[in-house]
Amino acid sequence: MGFEPRATRSDITGALSSPESFNYGVEAHEAFKRRALASDILAEQRKVQEADLVIFQFPLYWFSVPAIMKGWMDRVLCQGFAFDIPGFYDSGFLKGKLALLSLTTGGVASMYTKAGDSGDFRYFLWPLQHGTLHFCGFKVLAPQISFAPEYSSEEERKSMVASWTQRLKSLWTEEPIQCSPSWYFGQ
Amino acid sequence: MGFEPRATRSDITGALSSPESFNYGVEAHEAFKRRALASDILAEQRKVQEADLVIFQFPLYWFSVPAIMKGWMDRVLCQGFAFDIPGFYDSGFLKGKLALLSLTTGGVASMYTKAGDSGDFRYFLWPLQHGTLHFCGFKVLAPQISFAPEYSSEEERKSMVASWTQRLKSLWTEEPIQCSPSWYFGQ
Repeated sequence: MGFEPRATRSDITGALSSPESFNYGVEAHEAFKRRALASDILAEQRKVQEADLVIFQFPLYWFSVPAIMKGWMDRVLCQGFAFDIPGFYDSGFLKGKLALLSLTTGGVASMYTKAGDSGDFRYFLWPLQHGTLHFCGFKVLAPQISFAPEYSSEEERKSMVASWTQRLKSLWTEEPIQCSPSWYFGQ
Repeated sequence: MGFEPRATRSDITGALSSPESFNYGVEAHEAFKRRALASDILAEQRKVQEADLVIFQFPLYWFSVPAIMKGWMDRVLCQGFAFDIPGFYDSGFLKGKLALLSLTTGGVASMYTKAGDSGDFRYFLWPLQHGTLHFCGFKVLAPQISFAPEYSSEEERKSMVASWTQRLKSLWTEEPIQCSPSWYFGQ
């Protein structure tokens, strides 16, 4: 869909609230409140609002989402819509919704995971699962990671797709994971 | 500069090497080898090639770089230019160069750092420092983090700028940090 990833002045229609010194976060927050965000942002916010579950399907680029999807997060999940201060983590505005990262990687599993890591908490998913999704109030389901399909046999690739297909059938019965480490909230 | 963050077919000039099934990473690698990458990518690669030190200055968006800078990493640091398989981490093609993340945050320090974390290894910087910069061979200098300038007094903001100014004077004498955790390379 060629979504615009850059967070710029054009995301705010009409006058700025502090034109003398442009602060994107502040302006986006103000524009959200007066319904003055760009139409592509509003359209995406409506989709999120209507969803019970959001699945982010992407190829892992540099241990994270590709820029086009990062831009979706930067622009769509603005203050006022997805969270406020206060109003984040378990009180985030998207609470009651589920989110899931489904990703393919270039490298094999050992490049991404510490021996003994559970699927619940992986270092490289921290900014996305803890810092973004949980911050906005989402409950996070275990990530679906298809490692190195490019270097896998046709048989292995079919098996990745089959296990994802199977999982999708009973996704609604799954318990969310603890994507924030226990020390984060002083537990 | 309005850099294009989206990794697309247009990044490759001329014919694709496997048009029947588009794989961005593979095509960018092939295009790098035959000098067929888009001109904006080539221009950035030349700047990186000439640099001894690259400073990434950015406001932290969702515990990471804004999409426009993520897109710079996705498109500029392609296979063949920044790394190969093999040819990554200490053997990455940008070895001999230094990199440093200098960032401002929205929230206060306790939102980003575990009590006891050193500046050397922070969870939220893992995908950038370990997974991207070190992967490409850069030695990484300690991040310069200015926490919550928006909520700081004018005095505190001046002090943040002054300490950064001071540090820049002796940056060349600093030792790189260990941005990869010790378990990663089986130590």
